[in-house]
Amino acid sequence: MKKPLLAILAVGALAPPVHAQDALPPDADLRAAALEWFEPIPETPVAPEGNILSPERVDLGAMLFFDPRMSRSGIFSCQSCHNVGLGGTDGLETSIGHGWQQGPRNSPTMLNAIFNIAQFWDGRAPDLAEQAKGPVQAGVEMNNTPENLVETLETMPGYVDAFAAAFPDEDAPIHFDNFARAVEAFEATLITPNSAFDRFLNGDDAAMSEQEKRGLDAFMTTGCIACHAGVNLGGQEYYPFGLIERPGGSVLPEGDRGRFEVTQTVDDEYVFRAAPLRNVALTAPYFHSGVVWDLSEAVHIMSSSQLGTELAEPQADDIVAFLGTLTGQQPQIVHPILPVRGATTPEPQPMYDQ
Amino acid sequence: MKKPLLAILAVGALAPPVHAQDALPPDADLRAAALEWFEPIPETPVAPEGNILSPERVDLGAMLFFDPRMSRSGIFSCQSCHNVGLGGTDGLETSIGHGWQQGPRNSPTMLNAIFNIAQFWDGRAPDLAEQAKGPVQAGVEMNNTPENLVETLETMPGYVDAFAAAFPDEDAPIHFDNFARAVEAFEATLITPNSAFDRFLNGDDAAMSEQEKRGLDAFMTTGCIACHAGVNLGGQEYYPFGLIERPGGSVLPEGDRGRFEVTQTVDDEYVFRAAPLRNVALTAPYFHSGVVWDLSEAVHIMSSSQLGTELAEPQADDIVAFLGTLTGQQPQIVHPILPVRGATTPEPQPMYDQ
Repeated sequence: MKKPLLAILAVGALAPPVHAQDALPPDADLRAAALEWFEPIPETPVAPEGNILSPERVDLGAMLFFDPRMSRSGIFSCQSCHNVGLGGTDGLETSIGHGWQQGPRNSPTMLNAIFNIAQFWDGRAPDLAEQAKGPVQAGVEMNNTPENLVETLETMPGYVDAFAAAFPDEDAPIHFDNFARAVEAFEATLITPNSAFDRFLNGDDAAMSEQEKRGLDAFMTTGCIACHAGVNLGGQEYYPFGLIERPGGSVLPEGDRGRFEVTQTVDDEYVFRAAPLRNVALTAPYFHSGVVWDLSEAVHIMSSSQLGTELAEPQADDIVAFLGTLTGQQPQIVHPILPVRGATTPEPQPMYDQ
Repeated sequence: MKKPLLAILAVGALAPPVHAQDALPPDADLRAAALEWFEPIPETPVAPEGNILSPERVDLGAMLFFDPRMSRSGIFSCQSCHNVGLGGTDGLETSIGHGWQQGPRNSPTMLNAIFNIAQFWDGRAPDLAEQAKGPVQAGVEMNNTPENLVETLETMPGYVDAFAAAFPDEDAPIHFDNFARAVEAFEATLITPNSAFDRFLNGDDAAMSEQEKRGLDAFMTTGCIACHAGVNLGGQEYYPFGLIERPGGSVLPEGDRGRFEVTQTVDDEYVFRAAPLRNVALTAPYFHSGVVWDLSEAVHIMSSSQLGTELAEPQADDIVAFLGTLTGQQPQIVHPILPVRGATTPEPQPMYDQ
């Protein structure tokens, strides 16, 4: 991605298509245009800043990610809402947490989240490590405290050994920051390369069908790229939801003012991080409110609310077909065998009310 | 296991130990005695009666086992309460289900459950397929209906293909019985061979320590084997909990009369299937009530309630050490990638009240 996004936010500032309305450009031209905006997912994971991807740290992170004892109840793990088998989401409108409380926003995928500029719908966590500290403490989610979580880890010999191996230079490696760092290391490996789109970007003309190529072309020429570009086709910047036309209250509930809650700036009312679109065909329901189950409907809502355009049905279908090419190789994760509890490990407290 | 269990149920009918009280018999004699009662777990899974373990059927079963969309809420899967990373249990006293309801009994492990005579604490399901139909329908667990479950499966092309491959001779393979059959096929593969105990049984003298061998000897001579024998050291017969002395109401709540609820026979009051002890060191908390977290305490309670014996501390420690040798190789399961939902797949209904 080479063009600054903000420079083209105003609709209409996009370069006109280099071809007649219904003609598909030659593959080489389409690829060249796409490479101005998008990047393929790398084949191998990259270590986050300030972290390393040693096998010991990644394996520890997998254990923590799948361990329901990280929640106060002993019921919810990271995996509960970011299911590696469900495109990294929970498939619910908004997540259910401790005590069957319903959370305020749709659970975003952790697949390829390493490529986002910041985490959460409002970007309030600068990186995956900081993100990992949120849900474990949220009363509506895992309802735990750093103290209880650390005590849980310290009293299991299997975790004592695993932290020592993952952080070999530290005398007292079990602490909340290292919990988060290990989860971040594991999540950094959860990337989905080799989608049809990536194979096309990398030179394989046959990786995408004619319809999918028309959809890619339309995705660029109608202006979707203004917000959905980069390696994740989104996740790079913040934009008002309802830039042109505010969608109905079920899609954009008044009570959730988005990034305003983070910055307390009026300009940030109803501003959200543009959703990353990798694997979007797997991650229904859509939007932070999670009320839209159909990808085509989501495309139409985006078009009218963000671009002020009513897409013709064939073009919308083409874009949906293109979005399907963003489904990459899903991670093959061996479910970790979790450490056995120790004699003084805190018992799960499903009825604990913080 | 060669001796009929019921013949020795009356305490005192056991053969006296063939050695002086504190002397450990030679390994060959100890092994020969043990092989009268126990069998090693086979190295490879065996197909349940009326089922096959084709890769297609086992893989489908794994998908169903891990899929939270088998519950009405979209939140609970079989894996939620029978976690492959936690010895096949959820580590809770009793499980939490739909709407944060607390279930009546501790979640038993599905590891090696294929070797039990019947399933559930009260043996009300004759096999794993019948068992699999229970929790999905229980209002306090997954709160689903067979109709909604089948509709969920039929509307996902990935499941349509997977059922066709798993049941290639059937014209309409998606139905509730085949759901259960596929889950049973997967669960039949969840065995934990090569424990230290199995290696000892198979001829490796060095597989168990002196203390563990003393514990095995004590396990046989004090009478634990009356109920805990066979390949699973339990899971073969039904016995009254509190045969000699009824434990306190927290361990044996009055309201749960065990197998009586199945047979409506007075003789079956407070009768339960003897707990299988494979991997017992991983499956705290203990008993159907799940109120005992310490394995040593559980051994003492069993000794006084079932045998009428107060075990001396060294002997109890030895038995606990022996029980630790029952931890086998845990299954290495790649978390399945689950089928994407279809346009008409029923939406999850976390607030659905059956």
